[in-house]
Amino acid sequence: MYKIGIFDSGVGGLTVLKEIKKATPTSSIIYYGDNGNAPYGDKQEEVIRTLCLKIGKFLYEKQVDVIVIACNTATAAALKTLRATFPIPIIGVIEPGVRAALEVSENKNIGVILTPASAKMNAYKKVFDKIAPEGYTIMERGCKLICPMVEGNWEVEYGTYMTDELIKLYLEGIPSNVDTLVLGCTHYPIMQDTISKYFTKNIVNPANETANELMKQLAQIKEKDLSTGEPTTEYIVSGNTEKFFDFAKNFIDKDIKEVKKINL
Amino acid sequence: MYKIGIFDSGVGGLTVLKEIKKATPTSSIIYYGDNGNAPYGDKQEEVIRTLCLKIGKFLYEKQVDVIVIACNTATAAALKTLRATFPIPIIGVIEPGVRAALEVSENKNIGVILTPASAKMNAYKKVFDKIAPEGYTIMERGCKLICPMVEGNWEVEYGTYMTDELIKLYLEGIPSNVDTLVLGCTHYPIMQDTISKYFTKNIVNPANETANELMKQLAQIKEKDLSTGEPTTEYIVSGNTEKFFDFAKNFIDKDIKEVKKINL
Repeated sequence: MYKIGIFDSGVGGLTVLKEIKKATPTSSIIYYGDNGNAPYGDKQEEVIRTLCLKIGKFLYEKQVDVIVIACNTATAAALKTLRATFPIPIIGVIEPGVRAALEVSENKNIGVILTPASAKMNAYKKVFDKIAPEGYTIMERGCKLICPMVEGNWEVEYGTYMTDELIKLYLEGIPSNVDTLVLGCTHYPIMQDTISKYFTKNIVNPANETANELMKQLAQIKEKDLSTGEPTTEYIVSGNTEKFFDFAKNFIDKDIKEVKKINL
Repeated sequence: MYKIGIFDSGVGGLTVLKEIKKATPTSSIIYYGDNGNAPYGDKQEEVIRTLCLKIGKFLYEKQVDVIVIACNTATAAALKTLRATFPIPIIGVIEPGVRAALEVSENKNIGVILTPASAKMNAYKKVFDKIAPEGYTIMERGCKLICPMVEGNWEVEYGTYMTDELIKLYLEGIPSNVDTLVLGCTHYPIMQDTISKYFTKNIVNPANETANELMKQLAQIKEKDLSTGEPTTEYIVSGNTEKFFDFAKNFIDKDIKEVKKINL
């Protein structure tokens, strides 16, 4: 069976894991959540790259067939480096996100909400400029607090009157001519119900297209592990295991049994 | 000596009390903070008016010479009613705020940050339309969370990374041609240092001009209490006394001795 490595700065990448489990339920997964170093969203690019290399090495040594960087900031900072370092397919979430937006937008004006670090790297604009046809526009809106909001479960901690207002304020920064909004951080789909209250046109979750991309890659490679037993999902974090467990159980994987802590 | 009644939905009006104590240190003050019913900022106009009438009656029966409504939302909702009900001078904070802004603005474009309830009543725009000379413009920006931020001491509770970001997001809604920003809620001067990080042109605190207005009114009336003892400041609230005490001691009146609780 295929063995897929997925990583993120914390719980956000679980939204990608969810789509991947749907797309390939017979594959085994190792998920690494670097919550001991979260959030990535306000770190320097170099720092993020160093963290990602450590995680990449860890997953590669676990003999995964492919690595999915289930974090936009990490994709922007480290996709190239990881591809140059490890001889297996490495999949990011940004290009799939851009492709999905280009497909969905009718008036050709795309908006992206993302972390300040991703915005500073022009994570989406850089990829967009390479692959978008003539006539399309893109704008990026850095949203400092949405990621901490999800990691900290602020809806429960502080109340929805605060989380709703914050989402509303961030979305006020999206020009009214934008018809397609990309959730440019893997944490954001957790808040999609709230986001869709204040942005009522197309919303793109790059996780779907990332899962499609993964399926194409898998079709081209041979799995290393030829056993045919039950596929497993292994959760590993660098920080708090309990909060991760509760979050994963509530939002993504009700069958989760265990979260291990391994510092790299 | 003069006896001045001041009221607000909570601690915000203390910023007005502070200016009044500076302007007339020989007057006695009764301050009523309706924190049991705070925030006023998202209540219906009618509800606010009823609360203000009760407080007005309480202060009037305490034989104050004048009542200062140290709350913009309450001024917008109840100034007229209180003036029609009690035969003593009633002073609000909005007209002084507008007058101060008209004096300070150079390019004639004024912005106001205020509670959603005040914004819904067009609290500033209504007064502005009556007294502003030709050529001036005003825009109001409702800010749902700044008042709760001050009342709940969020800087300590949640951290400045959150309060800074919220202030920044609200101020992003102020057009760049605005050269004068009115703090249209008496809670906001508490956050003035943060506000001035993100709005670097003129900032108007209506409390100063309100104290001037009070001095003009006092000059025209005879005090009822002719004793010449030490002036007193009495603090009364409808809700939590301890939080009010700590707040008043930290931010406004280090000599505060006691806060009474009286429900009206």
